[in-house]
Amino acid sequence: MAVATVPTLASFSEGRWQEVRERVELPSAIDDRIVALAANGGVDFRAMVRYAKNTGGPVLRSLTFHQRAALLRELATYINERKETLYAISYDTGATKRDHFFDIDGGVGTLFSFSSKARRELPDERFALDGAIEPLSKNGTFAGRHLMLPLQGVAVHINAYNFPCWGMLEKLAPAILAGMPAIVKPATATSFVAHAVFAMILESGILPEGAVQLVIGNTGDLLDHLGGQDVVSFTGSLETSLKLRNHVAMAERAVRFIAERDSLNAAVLGPDATPGTPEFDLFVKEVVKEMTSKAGQKCTAIRRAFVPRASFEAAAAAIKERLAKVVVGDPRLESVTMGALASRGQRDSVRAETVCLLKDGEILFGDPAHVDAAGVGEGHGSFLSPILLACAHPRSAPNVHSVEAFGPVSTLMPYDGVDEAIELVNRGEGSLVASIYTYDAKVADELVQGI
Amino acid sequence: MAVATVPTLASFSEGRWQEVRERVELPSAIDDRIVALAANGGVDFRAMVRYAKNTGGPVLRSLTFHQRAALLRELATYINERKETLYAISYDTGATKRDHFFDIDGGVGTLFSFSSKARRELPDERFALDGAIEPLSKNGTFAGRHLMLPLQGVAVHINAYNFPCWGMLEKLAPAILAGMPAIVKPATATSFVAHAVFAMILESGILPEGAVQLVIGNTGDLLDHLGGQDVVSFTGSLETSLKLRNHVAMAERAVRFIAERDSLNAAVLGPDATPGTPEFDLFVKEVVKEMTSKAGQKCTAIRRAFVPRASFEAAAAAIKERLAKVVVGDPRLESVTMGALASRGQRDSVRAETVCLLKDGEILFGDPAHVDAAGVGEGHGSFLSPILLACAHPRSAPNVHSVEAFGPVSTLMPYDGVDEAIELVNRGEGSLVASIYTYDAKVADELVQGI
Repeated sequence: MAVATVPTLASFSEGRWQEVRERVELPSAIDDRIVALAANGGVDFRAMVRYAKNTGGPVLRSLTFHQRAALLRELATYINERKETLYAISYDTGATKRDHFFDIDGGVGTLFSFSSKARRELPDERFALDGAIEPLSKNGTFAGRHLMLPLQGVAVHINAYNFPCWGMLEKLAPAILAGMPAIVKPATATSFVAHAVFAMILESGILPEGAVQLVIGNTGDLLDHLGGQDVVSFTGSLETSLKLRNHVAMAERAVRFIAERDSLNAAVLGPDATPGTPEFDLFVKEVVKEMTSKAGQKCTAIRRAFVPRASFEAAAAAIKERLAKVVVGDPRLESVTMGALASRGQRDSVRAETVCLLKDGEILFGDPAHVDAAGVGEGHGSFLSPILLACAHPRSAPNVHSVEAFGPVSTLMPYDGVDEAIELVNRGEGSLVASIYTYDAKVADELVQGI
Repeated sequence: MAVATVPTLASFSEGRWQEVRERVELPSAIDDRIVALAANGGVDFRAMVRYAKNTGGPVLRSLTFHQRAALLRELATYINERKETLYAISYDTGATKRDHFFDIDGGVGTLFSFSSKARRELPDERFALDGAIEPLSKNGTFAGRHLMLPLQGVAVHINAYNFPCWGMLEKLAPAILAGMPAIVKPATATSFVAHAVFAMILESGILPEGAVQLVIGNTGDLLDHLGGQDVVSFTGSLETSLKLRNHVAMAERAVRFIAERDSLNAAVLGPDATPGTPEFDLFVKEVVKEMTSKAGQKCTAIRRAFVPRASFEAAAAAIKERLAKVVVGDPRLESVTMGALASRGQRDSVRAETVCLLKDGEILFGDPAHVDAAGVGEGHGSFLSPILLACAHPRSAPNVHSVEAFGPVSTLMPYDGVDEAIELVNRGEGSLVASIYTYDAKVADELVQGI
């Protein structure tokens, strides 16, 4: 394969693609060939922030919510018509066609959804009223009302590698709707997809100049130029989020900071949902779906599956039976139902995290060291088997409630009584999602109030 | 005066007043006599947090919003009937009778207000619905709805010295309403007022056991025992808030942290509001009121007063004329319109901050080094004259937009055109409040959108 055919991904700042100095090779998750060269460095971040504030911000703020919503709708339609192009690129992240529905169609979906919600729920004005008039003095000479207005800064989006399209658009939609220009920094490993989406946005000419800029590679001194009117939204690891959170911009200059990070999501099978009930079947189906969809690289995936002790063996058998039907391999093949992890580095991490989880239990299904990947040469790509673990004593197991293996890994655990289920779920110290499978309103009420 | 008559303020933890080991003397802001001895140390904070979670939390969570609201109303009525007792104690913080209306009556008012809002706006349930049902799948098999439920932890309230009663009750009301037990830590300097309010709450027997505990003195290792279900609400200086924010509990264990800290509030006189208009008179009245009410120790006080250049001399003259009528002195005297700062330490800080502000301007009224305090012996108490500063070139003045003198100090500044007013207000990098005095809808619109 000639190197000349590999595209170079540059940053887009101040209205133009930036000159590329350093290049980082990005390998395919399927066959390790180099699919793109990512730029690194060479961006003047002070100028980038200034450009967002002086060029994109004022134009976005001059529009009403409905006008901004119309831009999002137009953009959604534009990308939707070209999504096959994005599918073709996206396979090299290891994603299957079903995974593309989440990332590509899902991304387009957030644009449509924010657009229509804005037209239904927000006024055709440059401000929104928040709540009613609150009387503040007895004689009516002093009253208060909250107005919501755009911040005058820039929204910096630092995105995760697992959903390069959806992750970008689900943050971009509310920023544009709120009248704020954005600087988007995709994760490098899958930046070839994010870059393609960004190039499509530019090419469409739909958003005002300066409304979106792109950082490929390191963010350099970007944060040094942010202040109290700016927002940083981060999705990724606890470690990186702590580094960002403690940056002087967030710590002292009141830059708004939103972090979505590690989460030990739980699923609870209710005591009433014994084998043979529709709730039991749904539970089994969901555990396997969440393990294999996007090869388990979802912030909302089920990491901890709790079942009543009496149903443990039956649940384990049913999940194993379903996992045995999963076909891991080249996601471009029709027969394949689970693709690869996004990179070899990511697979190394998941293997290390699995070793950690194994201190609390044992393997019921899968081999962390080996998988037969359909249509892929031996040793190629970053494929991993789905791995079901069992942990017999979750009350005394520390790792299973604190270590997230961000891949096709889940741990099945028994519980005795709803109170213990609540206690075990809460060991995860909060999570993005938790799901309950029951037909008993009392069980649902207790679990919802307790977790 | 016999030392025996001075009360000792203890912490209240695990359902009982704690033994006092160390004592800190608290002087009166009026005449420096010791009004109370504050305890320090000796609290088992791990046990305190556990007690809140195991005793107060479950009972509060078992109540509905309306039942919790009824407790607040009952408490408000109880304290309201005894407010003269609190007035008598509160004078020694330097507060006048008018200041008591803010702190004591205002505090009771927040209890009444949260109670009636809850009964009007929240359901008689242990949960609240947040928004409508959101369809998540096309065929209607998957839909989402947000439920708001109490956190299962404790609310730690770290309060400022300026409003010992209101500052405590305005945080306590929403915590109790939300079904969370609280640990209240008042600022030591004025803790004799907070302690009296707390003792009244206990004596009333209205709140469930474990619903409120009190820390007098240092918080020791309190934060070490907090986790993801707990909240820390802080009011005070930027410096302390940074220290708290960087504590491992907030930084890594996801303890919710709310900080209300330094704010360079602005008032803007519109270009239309020339001398002789009611808006001009209102502006002058408000600047003086905000300088002298609570001796300027309000987070919402006007620190920066912007006037059109053409009205600068007239505004300065009108404000000086009103300030000349202010009577500083013993707040128990009928004739006195401004009391003392809360402590000598606080006065030292304000003097130092004023020196800093003087690098950007000059004094129009008052003497930071001296004031004649009515009814007070020479050199007694922590009285300070109201001080009006002028800053002729606010665009090139750094301190006036970044240094808050938390006392009866305000700086008058000229501006040229609404755009410059917006730019100058925004140099403060956001604030708790900003006020605009205009009868011109266009000026109001531009300023509201711009600042």
